[in-house]
Amino acid sequence: MVTPGGDAPGMNAAIRAVTRIAHSRGLQIIGFERGWDGLLTNRHQHLTPRSVGGIIQLGGTMLHTSRCPEFKRPENVKRAAEILAANKVDGLVVIGGDGSFKGALDLSRESSTLMVGIPATIDNDVYGTDETIGFDTAVNTAVASIDKIRDTAISHERIFIVEVMGRQRGFLALEVGLSVGAEVILIPEHECAIDQVVEVLKRNAQKGKRAGIIVAAEGVGDTRKIAEEIAKKTDFEVRLSIVGYAQRGGSPTARSRLLASLFAEKAVDLLVQGQGNRVVGLQNGVVTSVELKETCEKEKPLDLRLLELAEMLSI
Amino acid sequence: MVTPGGDAPGMNAAIRAVTRIAHSRGLQIIGFERGWDGLLTNRHQHLTPRSVGGIIQLGGTMLHTSRCPEFKRPENVKRAAEILAANKVDGLVVIGGDGSFKGALDLSRESSTLMVGIPATIDNDVYGTDETIGFDTAVNTAVASIDKIRDTAISHERIFIVEVMGRQRGFLALEVGLSVGAEVILIPEHECAIDQVVEVLKRNAQKGKRAGIIVAAEGVGDTRKIAEEIAKKTDFEVRLSIVGYAQRGGSPTARSRLLASLFAEKAVDLLVQGQGNRVVGLQNGVVTSVELKETCEKEKPLDLRLLELAEMLSI
Amino acid sequence: MVTPGGDAPGMNAAIRAVTRIAHSRGLQIIGFERGWDGLLTNRHQHLTPRSVGGIIQLGGTMLHTSRCPEFKRPENVKRAAEILAANKVDGLVVIGGDGSFKGALDLSRESSTLMVGIPATIDNDVYGTDETIGFDTAVNTAVASIDKIRDTAISHERIFIVEVMGRQRGFLALEVGLSVGAEVILIPEHECAIDQVVEVLKRNAQKGKRAGIIVAAEGVGDTRKIAEEIAKKTDFEVRLSIVGYAQRGGSPTARSRLLASLFAEKAVDLLVQGQGNRVVGLQNGVVTSVELKETCEKEKPLDLRLLELAEMLSI
Amino acid sequence: MVTPGGDAPGMNAAIRAVTRIAHSRGLQIIGFERGWDGLLTNRHQHLTPRSVGGIIQLGGTMLHTSRCPEFKRPENVKRAAEILAANKVDGLVVIGGDGSFKGALDLSRESSTLMVGIPATIDNDVYGTDETIGFDTAVNTAVASIDKIRDTAISHERIFIVEVMGRQRGFLALEVGLSVGAEVILIPEHECAIDQVVEVLKRNAQKGKRAGIIVAAEGVGDTRKIAEEIAKKTDFEVRLSIVGYAQRGGSPTARSRLLASLFAEKAVDLLVQGQGNRVVGLQNGVVTSVELKETCEKEKPLDLRLLELAEMLSI
Repeated sequence: MVTPGGDAPGMNAAIRAVTRIAHSRGLQIIGFERGWDGLLTNRHQHLTPRSVGGIIQLGGTMLHTSRCPEFKRPENVKRAAEILAANKVDGLVVIGGDGSFKGALDLSRESSTLMVGIPATIDNDVYGTDETIGFDTAVNTAVASIDKIRDTAISHERIFIVEVMGRQRGFLALEVGLSVGAEVILIPEHECAIDQVVEVLKRNAQKGKRAGIIVAAEGVGDTRKIAEEIAKKTDFEVRLSIVGYAQRGGSPTARSRLLASLFAEKAVDLLVQGQGNRVVGLQNGVVTSVELKETCEKEKPLDLRLLELAEMLSI
Repeated sequence: MVTPGGDAPGMNAAIRAVTRIAHSRGLQIIGFERGWDGLLTNRHQHLTPRSVGGIIQLGGTMLHTSRCPEFKRPENVKRAAEILAANKVDGLVVIGGDGSFKGALDLSRESSTLMVGIPATIDNDVYGTDETIGFDTAVNTAVASIDKIRDTAISHERIFIVEVMGRQRGFLALEVGLSVGAEVILIPEHECAIDQVVEVLKRNAQKGKRAGIIVAAEGVGDTRKIAEEIAKKTDFEVRLSIVGYAQRGGSPTARSRLLASLFAEKAVDLLVQGQGNRVVGLQNGVVTSVELKETCEKEKPLDLRLLELAEMLSI
Repeated sequence: MVTPGGDAPGMNAAIRAVTRIAHSRGLQIIGFERGWDGLLTNRHQHLTPRSVGGIIQLGGTMLHTSRCPEFKRPENVKRAAEILAANKVDGLVVIGGDGSFKGALDLSRESSTLMVGIPATIDNDVYGTDETIGFDTAVNTAVASIDKIRDTAISHERIFIVEVMGRQRGFLALEVGLSVGAEVILIPEHECAIDQVVEVLKRNAQKGKRAGIIVAAEGVGDTRKIAEEIAKKTDFEVRLSIVGYAQRGGSPTARSRLLASLFAEKAVDLLVQGQGNRVVGLQNGVVTSVELKETCEKEKPLDLRLLELAEMLSI
Repeated sequence: MVTPGGDAPGMNAAIRAVTRIAHSRGLQIIGFERGWDGLLTNRHQHLTPRSVGGIIQLGGTMLHTSRCPEFKRPENVKRAAEILAANKVDGLVVIGGDGSFKGALDLSRESSTLMVGIPATIDNDVYGTDETIGFDTAVNTAVASIDKIRDTAISHERIFIVEVMGRQRGFLALEVGLSVGAEVILIPEHECAIDQVVEVLKRNAQKGKRAGIIVAAEGVGDTRKIAEEIAKKTDFEVRLSIVGYAQRGGSPTARSRLLASLFAEKAVDLLVQGQGNRVVGLQNGVVTSVELKETCEKEKPLDLRLLELAEMLSI
């Protein structure tokens, strides 16, 4: 097992589940530490049902992680493949997001070890799964934060722009926006001119609604500028709040933990069946898997109908 | 709209969504207060996009609810039908669980008003939907509570039996048990003798795991007795904790709010299309609907494979 | 160090603080495991600034605890004193409540080791300190739980009796009751006949307030019976909810952590100054200490004026 | 009553308590809306025990607030005094922070209405009270957020600078820093060169502690620059997170609610006794009051010994 890339709540639950399920199928499990770096330096620990006890509720990853740009160099990928072989690793479970899976794909070309990906990222931007481990937790963390901000927004009759994570995508912002009843949701997948935003806010004010929450994905650009422009074009007090790294941590929600367990079971199943180069996922409520290559190459579509629904609900 | 039966987190989000979506389709909306009782006494309020503002994050139901056993009497059902007619109600959205839908079915036989059900109950025991509004919130409330209890369980090396809600079913207990990594999960759908529980606990103790969490559905019977029997048959300190009514309230999770919005949209769609006597639901990730009669008559199956998974994960 | 008796949130913060402060003063620290039992069996671990890292936010106690009735026997107290001597323990920091301090007092009579107590119990029933470690956390846990129950109470217009912990005392119930705006607070320190409770509820109903929260300390007796009697004497629906063991665990609040650090500093100061047989505490905002014997013999008074305030606030 | 200035969690609990206590003493209560603005425009509502029901647990202020720079002009202060007289207001309870009290002091010079201040601000920077309403809530909100960030800090072995509120003072940052076990705490009251910070981080790294949390008060200046400078002078990955406006909202903690009730009682007591131009407060555990003028002119001291304690605890 290895957890390269950014951490996400539920990764520990996945490590626990992979370890215990694999153990119950008679397999031995090692965990490389600090992501690809631990694979390159052969730093690993043996994982047993006991050693992964008491972690299901913890955020972060007990295997640690780190950025490892050098892993992209071909000679290092080869070296990693050699270390896998030296450790007699039959299957490698890679828990992470897009970047982690691209690394796994590169590695698969040099190694005979079976690669299976488990999608875990708060951004939910992995092709082949409707939901990633950690997404539900991040949504709820942002929602809880914005529920608090709303108190101030209403008390002061102010407009708040709240920036949430999501990298280049709007999955997180869209679900958060719907859940908090945002007046406006700004996501990279749907262009929205400042003037349109201003119009919505003015229309609301005429209806007596002078407080407002705008949820913006980090991918839409400089939210500070957006806040300033809106303030310039209206007489509203506009404030910016960035939810930030708290979204990446914290105790996973039940759903993130459950997804971790279900994905882990599927991942071990695939390995036991000798199927590699796949990424497990949830599609229409069913745990399934797609090709690793497909996940790396395709872009996950965002359901823009939810944006329309959000608009209808914020009248 | 009416919210008979027990409250569930997300009901207010559903009331808000039905009102605003129906309003945007040109409909007028009234809400009967205190469940069937308000329908019998014609106590209702007009609902507008503004009057349902600021409630998306609140637990409970702004329309209130109450037990109304007299609604079961035929003459009262008839009276309710007359009141619907007198108010020129074309469609009635019933937000609740099994009991509420049975009332709606009775009413549908006397009334030409279209009935559409929105499943909202923490028990998740409604046929025709994989998930009900409020379920995810209740699961997370119970999980948060048990995460705290685990601190004491581990510090004292004790066994805790934690009783969660769910009426006669084990949906809540099963998902909670999986999420907290329970050593044992007791649900009505799967018989489990005390001796089996004792054996698991003893085996764990031999492995050095003297603390343990047993999650029990309220439907399995007297948990106090179960605790006493386990204590008698082992040398463990056994404690009982009942999560209780907190599971029914609280601010809904993002998922409960989202489900409320999606179900509301579907319910209004059905009514606008002239389709009545249906209950909306989520099936394999898709929002759909089933016949009201079917929901009332069929029992929702529980996936016992999850119990096996939980067992494998608690080694 | 040793943590006998029940666990309380913030104990780990206290263990960390004692260890690091003592270390910075050049002392060596060992922690006996599982309470008095670990002292009797000489099971201990060396504690270093690193070994207590990452625990400030965790509930429970990393040293574990257990009931140890045999510690009350004189020969065992002597044995414990011998083990302290054998380990060359100059000072013993006892983190716990009344029971733990009584054990320390017994031990002090047989041992030349300096004893210093740090009050940590959710019950807040330790003489000599206005507040104990863990109390603020338990209050907030109960308050959060009752805030959720209120949703259901209001939606159903029901009366809820919520039982909170506190052993034979009402500190927890009183502060919880004030914080949730309870209609009635029942504590052992103030007798209150059922008829008085009934009268308050009826008067409230006349004012249009049919929902209500009664917060009851576990020390007032069988809350199930109280619920039944109230139901019998009124036409209210009455429900009982027991907050239970979750109050004992969970991540400590800022205040419980801060108190742990302040108490730890004082405890180490006393030991360095050669002062033993004392219990640290907070009195009128100042960290101070009292004689161990005094703490064991005197009963902490409860400010009944707060009960009057609560009454005035629940009109 | 009036709530000028920024909102703080517990303000609603204070409004409720003032209203109910004053009512029980036979007084009539009105609340001016939107801060000083509502006083200038005579926009107010009658407050009764019922109209302040169900708000004890809500963040924000039901009376709303707004910035009102025009209140500083002498003619407007006179006008406000006239409106107080016209409404026959014998006593005005001003709930807020420093700015609000300065307004009250100006007003007191033109008006015979008795002024009593209740300190409510998350910044805790009001002279004459050890703690303000809302402070404990803000501390806990920031602590909960940083507890999540720590997961990522440890998993990635990164340094996080977390900026918390507090305006020009370090009360919030200091208590938050102590509670999360921050490696470094930066506050305006204690100069700390970047090089010192770098030295601490390097020393920690040598001890094997490569992750770290730096809690910085907003008053110390541009935290983005601080993060960049630290990154430049070390090989650490440094990230910045700003907790932001969530600290100002949310359901008040038990302590913030309790303080609100105690302060309200004292404020009404003062008015009933005919004592004006005072600000209530908590001093060494006792509810008391100081002169309004004193509060406006003096600066509240910060206990720098806590900073030393924090340093000793972060080894």
